[in-house]
Amino acid sequence: MTATTERTKYDIKDPSLATQGKQRIDWAGREMPVLRLIQERFAKEKPLAGIRLVACCHVTTETAHLAIALKAAGADGILIASNPLSTQDDVAASLVVDHGIPVFAIKGEDTETYLRHVETALDHRPNIIIDDGSDVVATLVKNRQHQLSDLIGTTEETTTGIVRLRAMLNDGVLTFPAMNVNDADTKHFFDNRYGTGQSTLDGIIRATNILLAGKNIVVAGYGWCGKGCALRARGMGANVIVTEVDPVRAIEAVMDGFRVMPMEQAAAIGDLFITVTGNKHVIRSEHFDVMKDGAMVCNSGHFDIEIDLKSLKEKSTEVKEVRNFTQQYKLQSGKSVIVLGEGRLINLAAAEGHPSAVMDMSFANQALACEYLVKNKGKLEPGMYSIPADVDQEIARLKLKAMGINLDTLTPEQIEYTNSWASGT
Amino acid sequence: MTATTERTKYDIKDPSLATQGKQRIDWAGREMPVLRLIQERFAKEKPLAGIRLVACCHVTTETAHLAIALKAAGADGILIASNPLSTQDDVAASLVVDHGIPVFAIKGEDTETYLRHVETALDHRPNIIIDDGSDVVATLVKNRQHQLSDLIGTTEETTTGIVRLRAMLNDGVLTFPAMNVNDADTKHFFDNRYGTGQSTLDGIIRATNILLAGKNIVVAGYGWCGKGCALRARGMGANVIVTEVDPVRAIEAVMDGFRVMPMEQAAAIGDLFITVTGNKHVIRSEHFDVMKDGAMVCNSGHFDIEIDLKSLKEKSTEVKEVRNFTQQYKLQSGKSVIVLGEGRLINLAAAEGHPSAVMDMSFANQALACEYLVKNKGKLEPGMYSIPADVDQEIARLKLKAMGINLDTLTPEQIEYTNSWASGT
Amino acid sequence: MTATTERTKYDIKDPSLATQGKQRIDWAGREMPVLRLIQERFAKEKPLAGIRLVACCHVTTETAHLAIALKAAGADGILIASNPLSTQDDVAASLVVDHGIPVFAIKGEDTETYLRHVETALDHRPNIIIDDGSDVVATLVKNRQHQLSDLIGTTEETTTGIVRLRAMLNDGVLTFPAMNVNDADTKHFFDNRYGTGQSTLDGIIRATNILLAGKNIVVAGYGWCGKGCALRARGMGANVIVTEVDPVRAIEAVMDGFRVMPMEQAAAIGDLFITVTGNKHVIRSEHFDVMKDGAMVCNSGHFDIEIDLKSLKEKSTEVKEVRNFTQQYKLQSGKSVIVLGEGRLINLAAAEGHPSAVMDMSFANQALACEYLVKNKGKLEPGMYSIPADVDQEIARLKLKAMGINLDTLTPEQIEYTNSWASGT
Amino acid sequence: MTATTERTKYDIKDPSLATQGKQRIDWAGREMPVLRLIQERFAKEKPLAGIRLVACCHVTTETAHLAIALKAAGADGILIASNPLSTQDDVAASLVVDHGIPVFAIKGEDTETYLRHVETALDHRPNIIIDDGSDVVATLVKNRQHQLSDLIGTTEETTTGIVRLRAMLNDGVLTFPAMNVNDADTKHFFDNRYGTGQSTLDGIIRATNILLAGKNIVVAGYGWCGKGCALRARGMGANVIVTEVDPVRAIEAVMDGFRVMPMEQAAAIGDLFITVTGNKHVIRSEHFDVMKDGAMVCNSGHFDIEIDLKSLKEKSTEVKEVRNFTQQYKLQSGKSVIVLGEGRLINLAAAEGHPSAVMDMSFANQALACEYLVKNKGKLEPGMYSIPADVDQEIARLKLKAMGINLDTLTPEQIEYTNSWASGT
Repeated sequence: MTATTERTKYDIKDPSLATQGKQRIDWAGREMPVLRLIQERFAKEKPLAGIRLVACCHVTTETAHLAIALKAAGADGILIASNPLSTQDDVAASLVVDHGIPVFAIKGEDTETYLRHVETALDHRPNIIIDDGSDVVATLVKNRQHQLSDLIGTTEETTTGIVRLRAMLNDGVLTFPAMNVNDADTKHFFDNRYGTGQSTLDGIIRATNILLAGKNIVVAGYGWCGKGCALRARGMGANVIVTEVDPVRAIEAVMDGFRVMPMEQAAAIGDLFITVTGNKHVIRSEHFDVMKDGAMVCNSGHFDIEIDLKSLKEKSTEVKEVRNFTQQYKLQSGKSVIVLGEGRLINLAAAEGHPSAVMDMSFANQALACEYLVKNKGKLEPGMYSIPADVDQEIARLKLKAMGINLDTLTPEQIEYTNSWASGT
Repeated sequence: MTATTERTKYDIKDPSLATQGKQRIDWAGREMPVLRLIQERFAKEKPLAGIRLVACCHVTTETAHLAIALKAAGADGILIASNPLSTQDDVAASLVVDHGIPVFAIKGEDTETYLRHVETALDHRPNIIIDDGSDVVATLVKNRQHQLSDLIGTTEETTTGIVRLRAMLNDGVLTFPAMNVNDADTKHFFDNRYGTGQSTLDGIIRATNILLAGKNIVVAGYGWCGKGCALRARGMGANVIVTEVDPVRAIEAVMDGFRVMPMEQAAAIGDLFITVTGNKHVIRSEHFDVMKDGAMVCNSGHFDIEIDLKSLKEKSTEVKEVRNFTQQYKLQSGKSVIVLGEGRLINLAAAEGHPSAVMDMSFANQALACEYLVKNKGKLEPGMYSIPADVDQEIARLKLKAMGINLDTLTPEQIEYTNSWASGT
Repeated sequence: MTATTERTKYDIKDPSLATQGKQRIDWAGREMPVLRLIQERFAKEKPLAGIRLVACCHVTTETAHLAIALKAAGADGILIASNPLSTQDDVAASLVVDHGIPVFAIKGEDTETYLRHVETALDHRPNIIIDDGSDVVATLVKNRQHQLSDLIGTTEETTTGIVRLRAMLNDGVLTFPAMNVNDADTKHFFDNRYGTGQSTLDGIIRATNILLAGKNIVVAGYGWCGKGCALRARGMGANVIVTEVDPVRAIEAVMDGFRVMPMEQAAAIGDLFITVTGNKHVIRSEHFDVMKDGAMVCNSGHFDIEIDLKSLKEKSTEVKEVRNFTQQYKLQSGKSVIVLGEGRLINLAAAEGHPSAVMDMSFANQALACEYLVKNKGKLEPGMYSIPADVDQEIARLKLKAMGINLDTLTPEQIEYTNSWASGT
Repeated sequence: MTATTERTKYDIKDPSLATQGKQRIDWAGREMPVLRLIQERFAKEKPLAGIRLVACCHVTTETAHLAIALKAAGADGILIASNPLSTQDDVAASLVVDHGIPVFAIKGEDTETYLRHVETALDHRPNIIIDDGSDVVATLVKNRQHQLSDLIGTTEETTTGIVRLRAMLNDGVLTFPAMNVNDADTKHFFDNRYGTGQSTLDGIIRATNILLAGKNIVVAGYGWCGKGCALRARGMGANVIVTEVDPVRAIEAVMDGFRVMPMEQAAAIGDLFITVTGNKHVIRSEHFDVMKDGAMVCNSGHFDIEIDLKSLKEKSTEVKEVRNFTQQYKLQSGKSVIVLGEGRLINLAAAEGHPSAVMDMSFANQALACEYLVKNKGKLEPGMYSIPADVDQEIARLKLKAMGINLDTLTPEQIEYTNSWASGT
């Protein structure tokens, strides 16, 4: 349902889902104490007053809390989906109905609609863009150079988006400050590793209900997300194989007790494949050819291009839905390959994305990054910026406090020792 | 036995141990294929010809291979112990007897001897110093400013040493280039984590023969070394408690499934304590007071100051050796505390230090760092330098090759994708 | 919808769900190769021809395959639900519509309906009862002594049912042979441990979407199911606490690295509680009193009596659904306790029960146990019987074969050695 | 040194080692609270007064405590070694010198001496034999039938010994009661799993100092000892492969996340092999042929026949000691195979055997089994007997108490529930 009124423009599935959405948003809030504290401060201080803001995110219960916090800060914001499959329609409804936040996101929207929403977002003439995978920023740079003067800066929280921003920087087109939220320790240590780890398995189990114990699970990529997937898969009793292109990560995987081999070889062994590389066509034609009958493939990397579904389709005689989010490709060879969640982020397609407890810290970084950009408006050169270390530390401190966990503190003697070099053995 | 001859000056325990030392050095070589390849190249290219070099290291079978590689490179080097307890006397003997390398190191040497050896090292007027904990460099800076002109640069591989170099940098006394070997991925990921992890437990078991399963083990510090100790202790069935001062590390430990609490609280619960903080007096008077009867404490951090043994001694009525490397402190309260390895690095005191397989990569970094300093003589500003990324990658690649493990390689399409920002969802 | 026709009587929710049910049953079949082989043999040999059979089971996709195999064997069987919440209505529909198997089971049926279905089952005058928790058998013994002459024997696969059968044996009322399917290694090692382990966490995550990493999870009971839950919870990064009444199991949990303490103490620490004891009121009034605000409790033991919900309700001012399968009890003290799945088996209430791969072996045992009872009709004394060891071994062998895994075989020399006692050191 | 005096006959290496032995025995006592409590009761009650007892055990610090407890109970006992390599000479010395217990055991004794000690033991005309591997009992049955009338019974604690006793039973030559100590839960759960697991790795590391992380470790046999080795090897970062002949154990290993394959295939992959099968020639000629150059093999099963060293020797051109307990076999093919501890129990050959904490429970079972035999003298039929369940439970309870760990207790309501079968859903 699309609407354009004085107060709220939106494009969502069904406003009547708001009640259910609100209940689920409330539930998520239990595990998001850090963002709650920030929201309370923002409500008093209004650090984003008058700022036009676009957030392009997975529209989930956790994102709802970010949107609410930004609104509390005074931002004039709109929210669009960063992924066609990840929108939770009830959350979108509640944000529109209960909070008056314009949302443009419908689960399963086609590419055309997705791109239209990106245009709508840019029509908002944002001062700040919170991006997720860099689609909004890339479109702005490609097609709306004239709007760049409006832009104070952007924030980006995915590894994929950071790779694209780096490419822009190399090409000389990054003419504004971009906050690298992904590199905050309180983001990638937790969100990418523990969040992706748990929720990827969750998505796989919901999609298939298979027993993971005893399965050969191939994890393509041993970055933070891949580490999380491999660790949790082993925690469920699977025998994990890692594929990598980076020798340092590869040897780390070996020392962590995993088998490492090229995909060419792993393809014939795996019962289940998870791609988390940030690259494209990591599983492709030659790999499908050697897979076992009934092998399952899914993706937990940002874009749906890690598995080359086009080539799979070409060698298939039939594609049929055999369970929700589970399609069987019957190959000409007689074997079949099972694709989960159409190769899109499985944790968002078949489950509920990252648990609130990790998004609490990721989104605390997002909210504080926006505040930082506005506070330092005009002072930052174009380029990529890390989250200041003290912000990172403060988020961790708030989180621990909320969990009731105490730290040691350095004694004066220890502080002095840390700062001296003269005393030794 | 001390000797000063034309060819070789040395101060070692007993040259007749050389045969045993040689056998053990050969054994270690089996697991050090990367350093072996470097040594073979060095023997041809002589990149350190004419360079006066001091290496201050734990004198172990692995260090022997580093020393041999440096000599093969043409260096005029001498080796001293970086720790009074870690010297393997048979290795020292073989280096002197079989390789003509001057070594000044005796297991159990007193502080006076240790300091004398540092002076001997500086008398060598080094162009390059390979340091381990920064004692040689700190002494040079404090006492021999006039020798700084000889110095091309230094390398440092411990976290502790890096902290001291940073303090020197802050104080404006770091007037030469220092290679931060510790920050190489192929160093700290493996040496600090997997090396310290396994060898610390090895030292503890050799010193005590206790069953780790079911014990409450407190690991102070959750840096790379602490992560390794915690991971391996859990791998042996222990219930691990982590103490930290850094909130990000603390929450990482929590998410890894460990209990986190202040030492004050952990002190009353632990059966065994391992300090790996790089700081001093992490376990101190107030902690001993609340420990269980028979609690064991040991250290796997660089210096022997993490446990405040002075205060423990003051509250004890008796100290007695109850097993090799194991001393029982009888407290006035009637309880006793067991100290392993006199609070020195337990993996070197009671076991054999890091396994060769990790030192292979660490020392490959050391060797290549020396070559880098010499190649770039006169071009590097004073300050701290990372190991170049391609060196790091190359070491990992050589190691994987030696292990017979293959990687994936990026397709041309993937390389292009990585470098572009325009294509998206 | 209830129906009584010549051919098929049934009481299910909606026959039109059959298409979806069939699809899901087919899906489960992929992971059940052992039962498939048995079904193929049964179809030829008809070992249960003319046998009136009652199966009281969780009506899931896996049970469907058991029912189909038994029908293929010639049995005249009916299927009722063993638990009011675990029925999958689409599966029930497909069994009725596609296979003509009478099913009496509706998800969420009230106790009265449940008991009526038990009576319907007994009206079938069964020769064989496949029971799950011993409700049908107990009702038969209590109320229908006159039907005992029809009974050839029963099979039972839950720990809870076995405890009840033992109590009957002690009371002298077990006047027929009962096959203890639960004690088969291929049942309890896999179903109870790996099946309950994975599916319990799956149920919890689907009900709550909370991050398990870093949570204090209390597992009450360290039998096979408890071991599975504890192992998998740790595998997801939780800090696991075990409560036990049996000292041997308790010390096993300690040596496995878990904290062990009485529930009284654990109640104040836990973020999430899982009961798997087979006993009643394991979490009760005094425990709720000391729980943290927002603590979550759920059950994965057979009956819904492990958590004393009655006492919880009495001390609550409000009970409200805050998410599917998730109820918040607001206590008079102001704190709240979250109950998942109404205290019923969480893996069946909120997820899909045990994965097919483990039920394959459990139900292979069930099918072969029925065949064994019929083959040995009249030869077995009243009492409890184990599954013959060769049946157990054969099931494991078939499973491994289906997974493509090969074993070693004993050489003649080794067989001889195993059987001799005279040769030694 | 051999001696025959009025008071003490013995055959040990060197009585002057007694001081060191006493210190080490005292140390072990710290972790053996259960046996200490039993010893204190025995000292009062003298349950073994006048009983001639032979104990054939690994002569370790833990065995010393068993011997002392038995002497305190009034037994007239002698102790011989159960394995030529496992004797700790200082312990033997202390038992003779400090406790007046006759010991016949010398580390490294040849087979002739070993067999002579068995004869000496039988010359003692034992009423009770505590055996370890069943050599003494087998010799008695073969050669001294006339002494069987002296025998009240025997106890046996190894899996290997139990297999031999079963073979005797099958052959009709077990004409006395034999207590199966191995089957006590407090024995095999802990000793075989956690004890063998830790101490096997300890032995391997002491013998080789290799890094286990990243190594392919093949564990032959997945009984309790194999489970322990596999679990701990994974805990140290190894990639573990299991070989088995039993399909149930094999599938358990698969579900635990290990690779399972025949030795024929594993032989080509493994970096390190551990045999724990209880059978002979598990690694044999055809396996050596396909091993990688430098592969290491060791044994942690009872007898030194699991690795076929004879065939290895036949295909070798040279055998040389390359480190303590580490021999390199140079094959005709040019490759080499490394054998640890001469194929004898590696945890006793290169390390110190099982940690005291597990032997505490194993030997508590031994001590109470002896008492049970004497108490029931004349009442027990010939055959094999389990340790009574209440003894097992009591040992676990004492152990937990000593560790300061509390259990839950059943409420009256729960006890009633456990005993009833009538109440249900």
